[in-house]
Amino acid sequence: MELQAIGVQHPAVRQVQHIQNNTAPNRYKLFVAEGLWAHNMLLEANAPIDTFFWCPEAIYADEAHRRAEEIAARAERSFRVSLRTMEKMSERDKPDGLLSLAALPRWEPSDLRFGRTSLVLVADGVEIPGNLGTLIRSLDACGADCLVLTNRKTRLTHPKVIRASQGTILTVPTVEFEETGEAIAWLDRLRFTVLLADTDEAVNYRQADYSGRTALVVGSERYGIGKEWYGHGYQRVAVPMLGSGDSLNVSVSASVLLYEAKARKANW
Amino acid sequence: MELQAIGVQHPAVRQVQHIQNNTAPNRYKLFVAEGLWAHNMLLEANAPIDTFFWCPEAIYADEAHRRAEEIAARAERSFRVSLRTMEKMSERDKPDGLLSLAALPRWEPSDLRFGRTSLVLVADGVEIPGNLGTLIRSLDACGADCLVLTNRKTRLTHPKVIRASQGTILTVPTVEFEETGEAIAWLDRLRFTVLLADTDEAVNYRQADYSGRTALVVGSERYGIGKEWYGHGYQRVAVPMLGSGDSLNVSVSASVLLYEAKARKANW
Repeated sequence: MELQAIGVQHPAVRQVQHIQNNTAPNRYKLFVAEGLWAHNMLLEANAPIDTFFWCPEAIYADEAHRRAEEIAARAERSFRVSLRTMEKMSERDKPDGLLSLAALPRWEPSDLRFGRTSLVLVADGVEIPGNLGTLIRSLDACGADCLVLTNRKTRLTHPKVIRASQGTILTVPTVEFEETGEAIAWLDRLRFTVLLADTDEAVNYRQADYSGRTALVVGSERYGIGKEWYGHGYQRVAVPMLGSGDSLNVSVSASVLLYEAKARKANW
Repeated sequence: MELQAIGVQHPAVRQVQHIQNNTAPNRYKLFVAEGLWAHNMLLEANAPIDTFFWCPEAIYADEAHRRAEEIAARAERSFRVSLRTMEKMSERDKPDGLLSLAALPRWEPSDLRFGRTSLVLVADGVEIPGNLGTLIRSLDACGADCLVLTNRKTRLTHPKVIRASQGTILTVPTVEFEETGEAIAWLDRLRFTVLLADTDEAVNYRQADYSGRTALVVGSERYGIGKEWYGHGYQRVAVPMLGSGDSLNVSVSASVLLYEAKARKANW
């Protein structure tokens, strides 16, 4: 495969560094995919690939050599780079020979259509990228309709979000609201029953009503759900805490609630 | 508070470095607790503190100054260190003024007593420290009896296990078996019903029988449950996967199963 060779000074290389370090605006929601696993994910999801960087010296697996040609055929532009240049772009100790800038799909609230028993998760102020990615993986697994972000604290293009989502970030719809009030109005207009995951004054999550459309709201690791979500008469649901700790990991509690809602909707 | 001042060459400082980097045997299951949060956890759990290192220059919160005296009173030995020495021991970018070597509790299988509807989780070959710690946090939360480790791939004293467990590692009993066959014989002898978390040839986890004593087995992130667990007639239970991904995060799937088992046992 013949590709134009570029070095560390090339603007495309600098763009990757900006995306990795979040040091420039990223309005097209570009993210960095590294290695064979991530590229297989891009190809499977038919994700738009903006720029492909190929470093044949760093490729070991035969499969990666074959994939390189497929990726180059799909990418808007493709370059060949030296191992040293690859190292400047990679977040890995030992970079792989495949690295791409790809774009996350973008959804607007108006793009989404809901069914009679739809299930959505609202992540309000979740801070840790690994938790957000794991949440998205669980949303995919339980067949939920979408993720709603309010009071967003971490970017979806963070490498740890992508990794923890195991690629499901490319298929699970995500919508973001600048103001919590807009999200509340949107959910109310669509007649979602909103349930707040909160251990205070809550009913046991097994006793809650999951009929119709359900929106589960989980909050930040440190502060819980933002105060804007209270005062609307929404029911609070709790996963019982029977030990010495006072909370579950947020991606765990959200998943326990999501699967309870799904099981009840599906009559498992 | 007057404490003996020591420098980077002191054996106690080197011991901390060995524990952090896992470069020496650690038969007393020592781990490093850093900062106010971790020390509050040690004090609350009444955990044995081997060595306390105090760096007043690095302390900002009044509460930490007060706690330092309590910790020194509890520790076998206490030292004062410079900021530079503290930096050599700490895994943080900005070390706190409190750092201790403490011991994890040790349980033998024969120490444990089980009830009529006990619930245990077997983690077979789990590799990622954060997942193991999160599992322990969930075991605590759902009131399970203990964690059983087979085919252990990560040490319980790993800083990320401690952190993700949110301190519950000090209270949730953990037993380890060198050979999977010993764990199987132990569970059979105690008349546990063993359920394997596996999506192949499995029943939906909502349809499984959780009466009596239940042992849920989850496997490694990459390879699933080891083959030694198969061929004993154990039922396989699956959390349905309805999306594009083929698995859940292991701490998520274990938690969904644990809470299902607990809810059914407790008639929530």
